Amino acid sequence: MSRNITVAVDAMGGDNAPFEIVKGAVEAVKDLGVNIKLVGIESAVNDELKKYNYDKSKIEVVHASEVITTEEAPTTAIRRKKDSSMVVGLNLVKNGEADAFVSAGSTGAVLTGATVIVGRIKGIERPALGTCLPTVDGFTFLLDSGANVDCKPKYLEQFAKMGSVYVENVMGIKNPRIGLVNIGAEKEKGNALTKEVYEILENTDINFVGNIEPRDIPFGNADVIVCDGFVGNTILKFAEGLSIGLLKIIKGEITKGMYKIPALALKKPFYNVKSKMDSEEVGGAPFLGLKALVVKAHGSSEAKGIRNAIKQCTIFVENDIVSKIENNL
Amino acid sequence: MSRNITVAVDAMGGDNAPFEIVKGAVEAVKDLGVNIKLVGIESAVNDELKKYNYDKSKIEVVHASEVITTEEAPTTAIRRKKDSSMVVGLNLVKNGEADAFVSAGSTGAVLTGATVIVGRIKGIERPALGTCLPTVDGFTFLLDSGANVDCKPKYLEQFAKMGSVYVENVMGIKNPRIGLVNIGAEKEKGNALTKEVYEILENTDINFVGNIEPRDIPFGNADVIVCDGFVGNTILKFAEGLSIGLLKIIKGEITKGMYKIPALALKKPFYNVKSKMDSEEVGGAPFLGLKALVVKAHGSSEAKGIRNAIKQCTIFVENDIVSKIENNL
Repeated sequence: MSRNITVAVDAMGGDNAPFEIVKGAVEAVKDLGVNIKLVGIESAVNDELKKYNYDKSKIEVVHASEVITTEEAPTTAIRRKKDSSMVVGLNLVKNGEADAFVSAGSTGAVLTGATVIVGRIKGIERPALGTCLPTVDGFTFLLDSGANVDCKPKYLEQFAKMGSVYVENVMGIKNPRIGLVNIGAEKEKGNALTKEVYEILENTDINFVGNIEPRDIPFGNADVIVCDGFVGNTILKFAEGLSIGLLKIIKGEITKGMYKIPALALKKPFYNVKSKMDSEEVGGAPFLGLKALVVKAHGSSEAKGIRNAIKQCTIFVENDIVSKIENNL
Repeated sequence: MSRNITVAVDAMGGDNAPFEIVKGAVEAVKDLGVNIKLVGIESAVNDELKKYNYDKSKIEVVHASEVITTEEAPTTAIRRKKDSSMVVGLNLVKNGEADAFVSAGSTGAVLTGATVIVGRIKGIERPALGTCLPTVDGFTFLLDSGANVDCKPKYLEQFAKMGSVYVENVMGIKNPRIGLVNIGAEKEKGNALTKEVYEILENTDINFVGNIEPRDIPFGNADVIVCDGFVGNTILKFAEGLSIGLLKIIKGEITKGMYKIPALALKKPFYNVKSKMDSEEVGGAPFLGLKALVVKAHGSSEAKGIRNAIKQCTIFVENDIVSKIENNL
């Protein structure tokens, strides 16, 4: 199926580039039969590719002499670094030479570049970044998780519709439950934005299950949760920090004196807990509402994460999600 | 010191009323020498009081025939139930018959009632609810944690100033570090609100340490963190839910098969972790910006939580925090 799909991959983005990125691309070719365009400094990418045996017809290296770093202001970087791996990769998508783009580089630059170069679907007010947040028994798809910090009700309506299409088609959840992040269960609770959005979502034909209180998010009462990007990013980043903090407190307590021995015996289950929180499993964060899929992989992505982000792209393209989003507006 | 201080306590509010509330009040009298007015259904309160030996001159029962439940709409409840423990208790403060009020009842009703009956300090735009959020090595004082869902920059400026005064004087932290909750460390990051607030806080004489990213909140880089009540309540409730969820995942993993035995040996350290997250230690959430202190104790408060909330009130009154807030505007 994925044989005719081409994914452009930013070989220079992320903490582990180009090593893990190239490795993940090679794995994707082997596992999925997808075509890859690895975009970056040719010599560096080829040095990595040399290490592997793979179908040479499936991977093309597209040279880009510049790299955008996370320290750079996104808008300036995208405008000035025309020959960066990010801009060149996004242009491959724009020009129809690739179906989707994956980058583990600067989030701001990916979002800005994708919006400017790939462009929005007609009728979409703001593209949204969706992230899979681990829950006690699976995940919930959070959007917007940081692209739009000031939102109008219409944006959130579209986030809800796009999230519904994405989760149903790419993640295989039939008739997904859509919740609105809100500080109270009742319809009349919340701020000016959520009150208006509630009214709107009630009258759409998505499976709107009402408000999801932040306390209930980890318990998976909705498959998609919708909020503005400030709140979404706060939830996402606070979840990361709190998980690390809590595990640190636990580690501190259980490695004191006589507890060291039993704690040592629990290394494996604690490792399992960490895997459950692992963002690599689900690939990356799709930036939805554009004319093609752009996936922001985690900055610390390793090969598995990149491979899974590429897989996400193939499912997205095979299911023609862009048309489905258009038809659902 | 606390001998001349009188705290009115809502004997009927919270999941464990009146039992734990009365018990906490008796403990406060014994430990702190404070005067208590227990407000509620006289017969029920007296039935509880009978169980204890205490200085009878220190506790007065003030009869109130009605109870406001968490299911009731706050504004209607406060307006209609004139003889509820909450309205009667708040009126004691208004009329100078008590210096402060503690309730573990409906948060909405406490906030509405306190604002309407006790009233704001002149110049305060919006009172804010402050909550101690546990961190890896202590706590951070979060405000507004839910009273004001739509905020103007001026409100957050006042939250920052009130938080600074409170934490310095009641919690004993000299020159507390004040942070702004924001999705990015740099000054220019965030939404329209946080960008404006950053500019304002830079030019105050509080110890403003800049933006605090949600990921860093659990690591205690600021003593006070300021945000609008929607974001604050989201952080507070999500922290509760995620801690419970994560401990549940861990419990699930470490009690599988052969791990049961070492896990059993770690009961004590896990108990210590839970204590660290315990809201009872710090008492309740002060509602700041009113002409007197009103403390919202957690709905599930037990005696220790009530006793500590009463202690909070005595420190607040002894240090004349209301005047200090007025002088800092």
